[in-house]
Amino acid sequence: MSGGAESEPAVERVVAAMYARDRVARDLAIEIIEVRAGYARCEMTVAERMLNGHDLCHGGYIFTLADTAFAYACNARNHVNVALQCSISFAAPAREGDRLAAVCEERVKSNRTGTYDVTVTGASGAVLALFRGTSYQVNARVVRD
Amino acid sequence: MSGGAESEPAVERVVAAMYARDRVARDLAIEIIEVRAGYARCEMTVAERMLNGHDLCHGGYIFTLADTAFAYACNARNHVNVALQCSISFAAPAREGDRLAAVCEERVKSNRTGTYDVTVTGASGAVLALFRGTSYQVNARVVRD
Amino acid sequence: MSGGAESEPAVERVVAAMYARDRVARDLAIEIIEVRAGYARCEMTVAERMLNGHDLCHGGYIFTLADTAFAYACNARNHVNVALQCSISFAAPAREGDRLAAVCEERVKSNRTGTYDVTVTGASGAVLALFRGTSYQVNARVVRD
Amino acid sequence: MSGGAESEPAVERVVAAMYARDRVARDLAIEIIEVRAGYARCEMTVAERMLNGHDLCHGGYIFTLADTAFAYACNARNHVNVALQCSISFAAPAREGDRLAAVCEERVKSNRTGTYDVTVTGASGAVLALFRGTSYQVNARVVRD
Repeated sequence: MSGGAESEPAVERVVAAMYARDRVARDLAIEIIEVRAGYARCEMTVAERMLNGHDLCHGGYIFTLADTAFAYACNARNHVNVALQCSISFAAPAREGDRLAAVCEERVKSNRTGTYDVTVTGASGAVLALFRGTSYQVNARVVRD
Repeated sequence: MSGGAESEPAVERVVAAMYARDRVARDLAIEIIEVRAGYARCEMTVAERMLNGHDLCHGGYIFTLADTAFAYACNARNHVNVALQCSISFAAPAREGDRLAAVCEERVKSNRTGTYDVTVTGASGAVLALFRGTSYQVNARVVRD
Repeated sequence: MSGGAESEPAVERVVAAMYARDRVARDLAIEIIEVRAGYARCEMTVAERMLNGHDLCHGGYIFTLADTAFAYACNARNHVNVALQCSISFAAPAREGDRLAAVCEERVKSNRTGTYDVTVTGASGAVLALFRGTSYQVNARVVRD
Repeated sequence: MSGGAESEPAVERVVAAMYARDRVARDLAIEIIEVRAGYARCEMTVAERMLNGHDLCHGGYIFTLADTAFAYACNARNHVNVALQCSISFAAPAREGDRLAAVCEERVKSNRTGTYDVTVTGASGAVLALFRGTSYQVNARVVRD
C-alpha cells in the first residue's frame, strides 16, 4: 500500500509494528480499535488487578489507557513521537468489569511538537477522564525499511 | 495507638489499612518505604510487562508509581483525598530492572484541596519524571473506628 | 428578570455584575461576546503593551484572555467558581493588532469541581493556544439579591 | 566580559538585552531581581488595574509574573527558549499593594526541552501559586554578536 522512496508505510503497518512490541497493551488487553493520522481509539476492560483501595480503577491504569491512545495517534504517520508532558483530570470512577474507551484527537502539530486530547469514557458514555498530551518528534521511524 | 474521640490514628495504621486494600501496589510490587503527613516515598522495580515498544518503561507505570506516592502522602492524616488533576513531565527513560523511587511532598494544602509534587528518580538518582497532583478532600476517613 | 426565591438571575444579569467589577477585562478591552451556562466567548485585540521581546503577544496576556472566558463560563449559573489549576499549551504566536477569540466550553462539572476547555484562535481562525482549567465552587453567589 | 568565538555573553548582558525589549515587564513594573543560568527571581506589586471582580489579583497577572521569571531563567544561557506548555495552581489570593516574588528554578534540561518550577509568594512568604513550565529551545540567540 505504500509507494515510492519518500512515502511512509500505511497506518496499518505502523500500528502492527507498534503493537507487536507493545507488551503493556497486550498485558492489559488494550484493544487498538481504530488508528488514523492524529487519531486513535483504544479500549480496555477494568480488571481486578487494576483496582485501588476504594474498589475503583486506579488512576494509573486510566492514564495508561489514555497514554496508549496518545502514542498510537501521534506515531501513526510513522515518525516517532514521544510524550514530553501529559496531564489528566479525573471526572468519574470506573469499576471492575467496566469497558473503557479512550479516543485521542490531534489538536495542533508543528514540525517537532504537538498537542493531543484524549477523552476516556465508560460503558454509558459518561466522561471518566480528560487527558492532554504534549508530544515531541525525534529523528526515527516506527517502521524502518 | 490512637487516642480520644477527635484524634486520628497513627500514620502506620492508616498506611497498613491502605496497603491491605491496594491491589495495584501489591500487584506491581510497589514498596511503601516511608510515609508521614504530606510525605511519602515509594519504590518499584521496572518489570518486563511494564515495557513499551522501545524497551523502555511505559509512562503509564511511571505515572502509577508517582500517583501511588501522591495517594499515601495526601491520605496520611486519615482524611480521604482523591486526585482531581495530575500532570507529569517525562525527563529520562527507565529500563527493565531499574529501581525507581518516587518521593512526594505536599506544597500547599487548604481545607479541601492541596498540591503535591512527586519526583521520580532512577538508580543513579537522575530525575526521570516530575509529577504534580491536585487533591480534593472528601468527607470520609481511611480508618473508621 | 429572575423568578422565585430558589431561582437564579438570568445569565445577562450575572455577566453585567461580573463585568462591572472586572477591572482587568475593561483595562485590556476584553469584549464579552457571548455567555451561556458553561460557555463563554471573549475577544481581545493585541496591544503594544502586551508584546514581549520578540514583538509577539506575551503568553501572560493570552492566558489572561483564556482565563477570563473560563471565569465567565463557570460563573454563569451565578455560583461563584474559582480557578484551582490551569494549564495552557502555546501553538502559534500573535502579533500587535491581531484580534484574538477565546471560546470556553464546560467538559465536566460535579457539585464542587469542573473542567473547562478554552481554545484561543487568531484572526485567521488558527489555534494559538489550548487552555484547560479546573474550577472549584465556593459558597457564594455572583449576584446576591 | 565574554570570551572567544564559542563563548556566550555574560548573563548580565543577556538580561539587559531581554529587558530592553520586554514591554510587558516594564509596563507592569516587574523587577528582575536576580538571574543565573536556569534561575530567576522577579518581583511585582499588585496594581489596581490587575484586580478582578473579587478585588483580588487576577490569575492572569500572577501567571504573567511567573512566566516572566520562567523566560529569564531559561534564556539566561543566551539560547532562545520558548514556552511550550505551562500550568499553574492557585493556592492563595493577593491584594492591591501586595509585593509578589516569583522564583524560577530549572528542574531538568535536555538539548531541546526543559522543565522549570516557579513558586510565587506574597509579602509574608506564603505560597500564592505554583507554576511549572515546559520550554523548547529554538535555533536563535538572545544576544547576537
